[in-house]
Amino acid sequence: MHREKCTLAAYARGVTTYATDLAGIRAAHERIAPHVHRTPVLTSRTMDTWASSDGVARSLFFKCENLQRIGAFKIRGAMNAVLKLTDEAAARGVVTHSSGNHAQALALAARIRGIPAHIVMPTNAPEVKREAVRGYGGRVVPCEPTQKSREETAARIAAETGATLVPPYDHADVIEGQGTLALELFDEVPDLDAVIVPLGGGGMISGVALAYRELAPETQVIGAEPALAADAYESKRSGAIVAQKPPVTVADGLRTSLGALTFPVVRDLVSEIVLVDEEPIVACTKLVFERMKLVIEPSAGVSVAVALGRGQSRLSASLRRIGVVLCGGNVDLDALPWLKRA
Amino acid sequence: MHREKCTLAAYARGVTTYATDLAGIRAAHERIAPHVHRTPVLTSRTMDTWASSDGVARSLFFKCENLQRIGAFKIRGAMNAVLKLTDEAAARGVVTHSSGNHAQALALAARIRGIPAHIVMPTNAPEVKREAVRGYGGRVVPCEPTQKSREETAARIAAETGATLVPPYDHADVIEGQGTLALELFDEVPDLDAVIVPLGGGGMISGVALAYRELAPETQVIGAEPALAADAYESKRSGAIVAQKPPVTVADGLRTSLGALTFPVVRDLVSEIVLVDEEPIVACTKLVFERMKLVIEPSAGVSVAVALGRGQSRLSASLRRIGVVLCGGNVDLDALPWLKRA
Repeated sequence: MHREKCTLAAYARGVTTYATDLAGIRAAHERIAPHVHRTPVLTSRTMDTWASSDGVARSLFFKCENLQRIGAFKIRGAMNAVLKLTDEAAARGVVTHSSGNHAQALALAARIRGIPAHIVMPTNAPEVKREAVRGYGGRVVPCEPTQKSREETAARIAAETGATLVPPYDHADVIEGQGTLALELFDEVPDLDAVIVPLGGGGMISGVALAYRELAPETQVIGAEPALAADAYESKRSGAIVAQKPPVTVADGLRTSLGALTFPVVRDLVSEIVLVDEEPIVACTKLVFERMKLVIEPSAGVSVAVALGRGQSRLSASLRRIGVVLCGGNVDLDALPWLKRA
Repeated sequence: MHREKCTLAAYARGVTTYATDLAGIRAAHERIAPHVHRTPVLTSRTMDTWASSDGVARSLFFKCENLQRIGAFKIRGAMNAVLKLTDEAAARGVVTHSSGNHAQALALAARIRGIPAHIVMPTNAPEVKREAVRGYGGRVVPCEPTQKSREETAARIAAETGATLVPPYDHADVIEGQGTLALELFDEVPDLDAVIVPLGGGGMISGVALAYRELAPETQVIGAEPALAADAYESKRSGAIVAQKPPVTVADGLRTSLGALTFPVVRDLVSEIVLVDEEPIVACTKLVFERMKLVIEPSAGVSVAVALGRGQSRLSASLRRIGVVLCGGNVDLDALPWLKRA
């Protein structure tokens, strides 16, 4: 079957094509494997007990991307995008605008290939984040703290240097890279009823859904989204991209909106999106520290909350063996969310 | 070779015998394997870089007993002691006095065998610790917060119920059980130059040293001890047990003194003890949260500090491949040590 690559034009014509497919994700896995960790899949009897509290015996399988390089899954997509550049394009470097995990991921990926990385960051970004990018050898380019300034600055750098723009999620190579975590999860636990994936811009869930679509179509891919940043939930329900309202959720990794490449996947291949309120996000993040001895960021706590039945809707009783993606562990240890004053 | 079991009498006669040997530890491993986790051995490029900062390239291998059941290695020894009881003795239950990880470990081990556990805890122990013991099915017996009352109460319970006393570290079956972690570490990384083990009462380091003595005598076993609880260091130096001064270290798992069974092992088979000040204990505990995304207790941070050259003395340049035991992860997440007011 010919599968047309998804483009804005194709999407406008109503052609349902997607950013990548299983073959693309498999090739990405082979490409990035020497440079990223194969993260462990951990289990916890205590967590299983809590997930089973509504009378259904459940087993949870935690895919620990918090133990990934740079502390989050983002290195998978960034590494894949950087390695797919031609030598000529690579020599001119890469550029992005981000103050999150993607900034560090792209800086590290570029260093691994030995090419320049220009990371556009707003002047109000915490110094610790700028330090982290510099620590991986990235060049921090300051900009005004507006979306317009971020985009313009990145475009200017690209024009000046010839660097390739690698956006944080709405890019086929990035989606393909993020999907590689699904291959590893499937390899370790092939018979999952569902996989719960934190949902922000949709890069990770798109990669996971496109992998499972061919690996195990019977495995449901479920999005976990903060109720205070419910743009994907609204977009899926309405059938068109709904922009994010100014987001205030503690899950700072999930404040982005869907893009042209991630929306169709979320619309068609994600079986449901469960919204989670702030209190269970914080409580479940703490539970993972306490009972699993793992440091996770609140974005990962969102998927844990869904698994433990703490979302706004409960999981179907037919879902017994469930993968839970712990997407990252980059959290400010001096301001843990459960220690903040009310 | 006949190896006399270590007893106080033998020790008084100057006969150097030890609590157990490799065969005993191997048998313990087989006995407890169905009930405890085989914990992972993790590595970190960042930690390796820091360990290498004095110009020597080092590789660290972290044995993650923080991911063990009950969040600490203590379940190994408690499980072994409980499983070695005859059916008749087991039916009468077990008793200990502890407000630390051993209390929870013995409660869980007893529940697994289906026998009663009486845990003597001082009335000033935090309610959360009593709850944890009850959560594993243990019976909490209150006593006055003095060593005398703890021992007398435990002895009274033993007399009343016929329960067997299982002390936290100075017991051959407990030492044997703790030693099983060394078998797993050796199995994964057979060519270590050294293993760094946190040192409190000496149960864990005795088990590890007795295992390595026969497994790989060239591997040095190094104790990591808080400078504010330096009784083992003083005991080894003076050749006789020096009692712990009232200990104030943040590493609350390491405040105990050596016992009659653990002292000879520390004296003879531990190659050196490195003392660590409070500031590096806290800093290195935080580093593991930050860079390895693992929750550890400060007692584990002591061994990390030694590995990173933050102890009062540096490791020999000949030690390149080093095991580091992360003994546990039971820390109060509402009062993390780096957040305490000065």
